[in-house]
Amino acid sequence: MPVQMDAAALRAFLERDFPQMESDFVIERVDEREITVRLKVEYRHLRPGGTVSGPTMFALADVSVYLGILAMIGPKGLAVTTNCSIDFMRKPAAGADLIAECKLLKLGRVLAVGDVLIYSEDVAEPVARATLTYSIPPEIN
Amino acid sequence: MPVQMDAAALRAFLERDFPQMESDFVIERVDEREITVRLKVEYRHLRPGGTVSGPTMFALADVSVYLGILAMIGPKGLAVTTNCSIDFMRKPAAGADLIAECKLLKLGRVLAVGDVLIYSEDVAEPVARATLTYSIPPEIN
Amino acid sequence: MPVQMDAAALRAFLERDFPQMESDFVIERVDEREITVRLKVEYRHLRPGGTVSGPTMFALADVSVYLGILAMIGPKGLAVTTNCSIDFMRKPAAGADLIAECKLLKLGRVLAVGDVLIYSEDVAEPVARATLTYSIPPEIN
Amino acid sequence: MPVQMDAAALRAFLERDFPQMESDFVIERVDEREITVRLKVEYRHLRPGGTVSGPTMFALADVSVYLGILAMIGPKGLAVTTNCSIDFMRKPAAGADLIAECKLLKLGRVLAVGDVLIYSEDVAEPVARATLTYSIPPEIN
Repeated sequence: MPVQMDAAALRAFLERDFPQMESDFVIERVDEREITVRLKVEYRHLRPGGTVSGPTMFALADVSVYLGILAMIGPKGLAVTTNCSIDFMRKPAAGADLIAECKLLKLGRVLAVGDVLIYSEDVAEPVARATLTYSIPPEIN
Repeated sequence: MPVQMDAAALRAFLERDFPQMESDFVIERVDEREITVRLKVEYRHLRPGGTVSGPTMFALADVSVYLGILAMIGPKGLAVTTNCSIDFMRKPAAGADLIAECKLLKLGRVLAVGDVLIYSEDVAEPVARATLTYSIPPEIN
Repeated sequence: MPVQMDAAALRAFLERDFPQMESDFVIERVDEREITVRLKVEYRHLRPGGTVSGPTMFALADVSVYLGILAMIGPKGLAVTTNCSIDFMRKPAAGADLIAECKLLKLGRVLAVGDVLIYSEDVAEPVARATLTYSIPPEIN
Repeated sequence: MPVQMDAAALRAFLERDFPQMESDFVIERVDEREITVRLKVEYRHLRPGGTVSGPTMFALADVSVYLGILAMIGPKGLAVTTNCSIDFMRKPAAGADLIAECKLLKLGRVLAVGDVLIYSEDVAEPVARATLTYSIPPEIN
């Protein structure tokens, strides 16, 4: 199953449809059912103490699976998150970007499931893991 | 087990320690192991189409359980989210605030578990549900 | 939305299609989008120490949501679990049956979501909570 | 961090402390923070239609993480599951054993987190994935 949208196509899609997110995220790599997304950590993503907030990590996991699905099915639009489980395992390193490594475990007719490991850049142990389910509306099958 | 911090005390805590969150959330009600928190929906919380974003709902669920725990154990600080499962079940109503009804199911020595139902104001069916686990560090037992 | 199958109809369905489960579970109450199911705890459900095993509690949560869905949509068959999150919060009481209180939070065209609290009989604090998503195949809509 | 218990030591532990499980599971491989466990599928594990039941897959994921933790910390006992999220993604192949590939993402002082992918033997796409959190009691630190 070939990739339908590469990093440049996904970026153009984000710029047009999600301009508020485009400045936060960098698509580093797109492969069949795999994508790597960087969060450029800014002050607004931080909690007191300098650590990246939980909602920011959730957002990174969510956008990574979304873009991973779009990469495979094309810019057809309205997949929605139906479920997420996320484990916060370590404190992110201060001052480091976060890197999300996402793998689609299932890309079915109506449901897609993606797994995400989130790392502080250049740190071996993941800070968080997440699994998200997206519902793919019938019109885009 | 009596409530240690009421809505005013929780608000003062938020203002001091999480000023960036204080303008988003209103603590509506505090009871033993229960809390109601309102998200004042603003433009920055929305996705294209006018619906509240997933990360915003995650943030609402997360802060509700955090405040529910602080209400019971006092302003001792550094409980951290270790796990969240969240189900997005319906599209939030456009232009309506979100109301989180949180209940602590467990408040143990090292782990607390809170359940949250999120509603669009004045709509009967919940838009999302979440369960969060917090780890309570030893020094605050 | 009226109940399509009452406790007797659900029991007859279990006896015919899931005979291996029928002896474990008692349907105590069926209401609109709500069901109560008892697990008659036997030696084979226990872990060393006399506590009910995790897989047994998972099975109780799973069957409760399944029966709660069937009660509403009728005996049309093949809904399948796609996701479960479960929190084990306390040790079940020794020698007590488990009671699952299940509520359907969503009963959509393709997905249903049920919430379950599991109690040791006559104990106020829940031993576990679970949320399950079922996928409802198109032919039974 | 070296492995404390190899496959033979884990098997001896299972035989002594969980004799009812010992006949179902085969420990195929133990490495640092990784373990592979086979479920020998028997008639009692099946649902109508010949597919392995959800509770059986939950049990396989649960025991895999448990044994993966014991392999690293030794036979000290009483780690308990506090949380599991599990996604059922495909129907298991009929008549095939299930293989669980488990990786410990965190092995902390009080919490351990393990990720599991479950495959039908000789099938490339996973049938399920799960993440489990175990609480490690203080006396075994």
